[in-house]
Amino acid sequence: MAPGCEVLGRVRTGLARLEGSRWGLGSQIMWKTDCPASSHLVDSCLPQSLVQPAATKLVLLVLDGLGGLPREPGGPTELEAAETPNLDRLAAEGQVGLSQPVGLGITPGSGPGHLALFGYDPVASNIGRGALSALGLGLRLEAGDLGVRLNFCTLDDQGVVVDRRAGRIDTQINQALVARLNGIEVPGVELAFATESQHRAVLIMRGAYLSPAVQETDPQAVGVPPLEPEPLTATAQHTSAVLRLVTEAVRDCIGGESPANFVLMRGYAGLPELESLNSLYGLQAVCLATYPMYKGLARVAGMAVVDGLHSVDNQMTTLATVWDEHDYFFIHHKAPDARGEDGGFDAKAAAIEEMDRRVPDLMALGPDVLAVTGDHSTPSTLRQHSWHPVPCLFRAGSVLPDTVESFGERACGQGSLGVFPAQSIMPLMLAHGGRLQKFGA
Amino acid sequence: MAPGCEVLGRVRTGLARLEGSRWGLGSQIMWKTDCPASSHLVDSCLPQSLVQPAATKLVLLVLDGLGGLPREPGGPTELEAAETPNLDRLAAEGQVGLSQPVGLGITPGSGPGHLALFGYDPVASNIGRGALSALGLGLRLEAGDLGVRLNFCTLDDQGVVVDRRAGRIDTQINQALVARLNGIEVPGVELAFATESQHRAVLIMRGAYLSPAVQETDPQAVGVPPLEPEPLTATAQHTSAVLRLVTEAVRDCIGGESPANFVLMRGYAGLPELESLNSLYGLQAVCLATYPMYKGLARVAGMAVVDGLHSVDNQMTTLATVWDEHDYFFIHHKAPDARGEDGGFDAKAAAIEEMDRRVPDLMALGPDVLAVTGDHSTPSTLRQHSWHPVPCLFRAGSVLPDTVESFGERACGQGSLGVFPAQSIMPLMLAHGGRLQKFGA
Repeated sequence: MAPGCEVLGRVRTGLARLEGSRWGLGSQIMWKTDCPASSHLVDSCLPQSLVQPAATKLVLLVLDGLGGLPREPGGPTELEAAETPNLDRLAAEGQVGLSQPVGLGITPGSGPGHLALFGYDPVASNIGRGALSALGLGLRLEAGDLGVRLNFCTLDDQGVVVDRRAGRIDTQINQALVARLNGIEVPGVELAFATESQHRAVLIMRGAYLSPAVQETDPQAVGVPPLEPEPLTATAQHTSAVLRLVTEAVRDCIGGESPANFVLMRGYAGLPELESLNSLYGLQAVCLATYPMYKGLARVAGMAVVDGLHSVDNQMTTLATVWDEHDYFFIHHKAPDARGEDGGFDAKAAAIEEMDRRVPDLMALGPDVLAVTGDHSTPSTLRQHSWHPVPCLFRAGSVLPDTVESFGERACGQGSLGVFPAQSIMPLMLAHGGRLQKFGA
Repeated sequence: MAPGCEVLGRVRTGLARLEGSRWGLGSQIMWKTDCPASSHLVDSCLPQSLVQPAATKLVLLVLDGLGGLPREPGGPTELEAAETPNLDRLAAEGQVGLSQPVGLGITPGSGPGHLALFGYDPVASNIGRGALSALGLGLRLEAGDLGVRLNFCTLDDQGVVVDRRAGRIDTQINQALVARLNGIEVPGVELAFATESQHRAVLIMRGAYLSPAVQETDPQAVGVPPLEPEPLTATAQHTSAVLRLVTEAVRDCIGGESPANFVLMRGYAGLPELESLNSLYGLQAVCLATYPMYKGLARVAGMAVVDGLHSVDNQMTTLATVWDEHDYFFIHHKAPDARGEDGGFDAKAAAIEEMDRRVPDLMALGPDVLAVTGDHSTPSTLRQHSWHPVPCLFRAGSVLPDTVESFGERACGQGSLGVFPAQSIMPLMLAHGGRLQKFGA
């Protein structure tokens, strides 16, 4: 039994803990009998305590934002409309259901959506905005670092916020301002400013004793001055003092500019220190993703990350080259989510088809276990993430196929997996991979 | 984020806490992610933290005791036998499932059944018998009040209980006795006795420092004297002393009567201090119910209550008149439960049909989200509440219709919602109403 499991029966101490930079999965564990639906999901500690080695290859294929809605009443969803002969065959040969990333009615961001798929509790391991923005830019966050989401803003002569987004300045202006801000030095802490886009930027702070428990300076309104980065707990006094120095330096540095003459800070967050998939399950996990955000999330789970991938072709070609070195493969396909957010029904269907065409390449490698799903739904009619559960299929030698013959929302709603927690995908993959011993005698 | 969420991380201390008179939802809240079924059910604090305003109208239509069983093997249930063209159409256009009020195998009373539908944890917010009896009589309980369930009983000359129900005296005799008991005065506490029916009555106590942690005086057996209202905790000494004075006064008042010459006390309970639906979710909720119990339960959730309703006609006519002022409408139809408890299979089916005929009136108002379900099942073959999960349908623009074409127990068992916690109906309604932001970035 791994060390984390000794804490069964201890309870999580709550949000305050989520804000600390030094929490781990173990401290969130308690007896599952306090909860109404214990039949579906077991804590990562139970599978973890049962891990046994096996020479099996597990593949998690994520079609980001996979789930959708009909464009017109009675019509098909994007996935149902897409020509997906390969995924349909896998669904017919395998078992399907609808995976629920966080809970009924809850729309997940990319962070909770993926961490659930990797087997982590998506709420306990939620990543704050500053840290996630840093991941999205491909910036590395280490334990103890603090990410801060910045908006360039406009202050008037009295120091009052007149535009919280500085007129949505061009990204090029943002970059020029960030270059100057990167000259700021504050003793005892390393600072790195980075451009996101338009008025959006990120600050990464590295140093000892940094705490996210500081008041956000964005007043969320115009006509008032920015708030002060007051400490919200006694242990955040150092961070508060650092941030005051930073804001003064920002004022000195760009205070004479127009319209972007200050920054508003929010979403202070470090990365959660999650136990790695290797430590939890003995997996040699690798990520094949094209976007920085998902590579960052994979790093949070301790995966190796292949850099330099730009297309599904890249991903599939590379998969073959890293096949022997790893045993858990996270393949991330961004396009369905991006097209869904654009409101492109047909484009989303096409993005799904693009991956379907490469499924035979994947199957040719002979994965022992394949799970195909999304991190959340992104219906093109809604143009945003949604709360709808996500089609999911399992293909493995030990799967009991159900009666479903195709891969789609309604078909998966008839699958024998039912509606189930996305967090259970990992233990199911491990089980089908022969990587979990019996529990109890 | 509403104040209740500040207690995130505190944990429920168990049943003992449920017996206390001064507990609120906050103290029982913890992240459900500590719990395995987090994929299905999230604590009210997670949706609460994501609430955003939206000008949408949500309707919860409760057919009390909706779920049933076949009268003969192979036959239909009451709902399946009923002619419900309107509910069938909504089921075809919407998404269905079976809602589980408390848990598999657990038969809910009206209190937990409804509080789950309103989004509260039905176990943590359970209402004790004395308080629920008071609600059923339409009596108002305020914070700190204590309700006590009374049985008139017969004592012999030695003070031994010879009939715990005093021969089930007529309700009229009960009323005459209660009128005399209402002359009892005890310093420092207001007392109000009320007739329930036959030998059943209720005492409401109002005053400072009242505690339910007092021994029940009903010995649950004949041939022994009543028990004393001993304090079970140090803080209940005052209440114990008051109840001793009450029992002495009752003896003085009706000790010479026959057969009802004393009362046995049990079910000491105040109302839970639940955070209101307005505070939790920003809803302007209103209750349209005909029976006192359900109006009382709605008040516990902070709803406005329309008084003077006596029929489905009343309810539907009134719904239109209050439509503009509110955004969450709880419509309660009592008849299916009452007919089920009478053992009337056909009468229960007819009661369901009665509401079905008014569904077009409801839809004509254009609700953005409609959920139709029951608070529990009441099979007419069992003549009582049961543990069977309850048919539930959702109708909203963002619902993904499943393949089910009618509204019934077996049909809903094929629905894409699966069997899901009734407590999730509220977050699902909020999500479909555009009232929840994304969780996590």
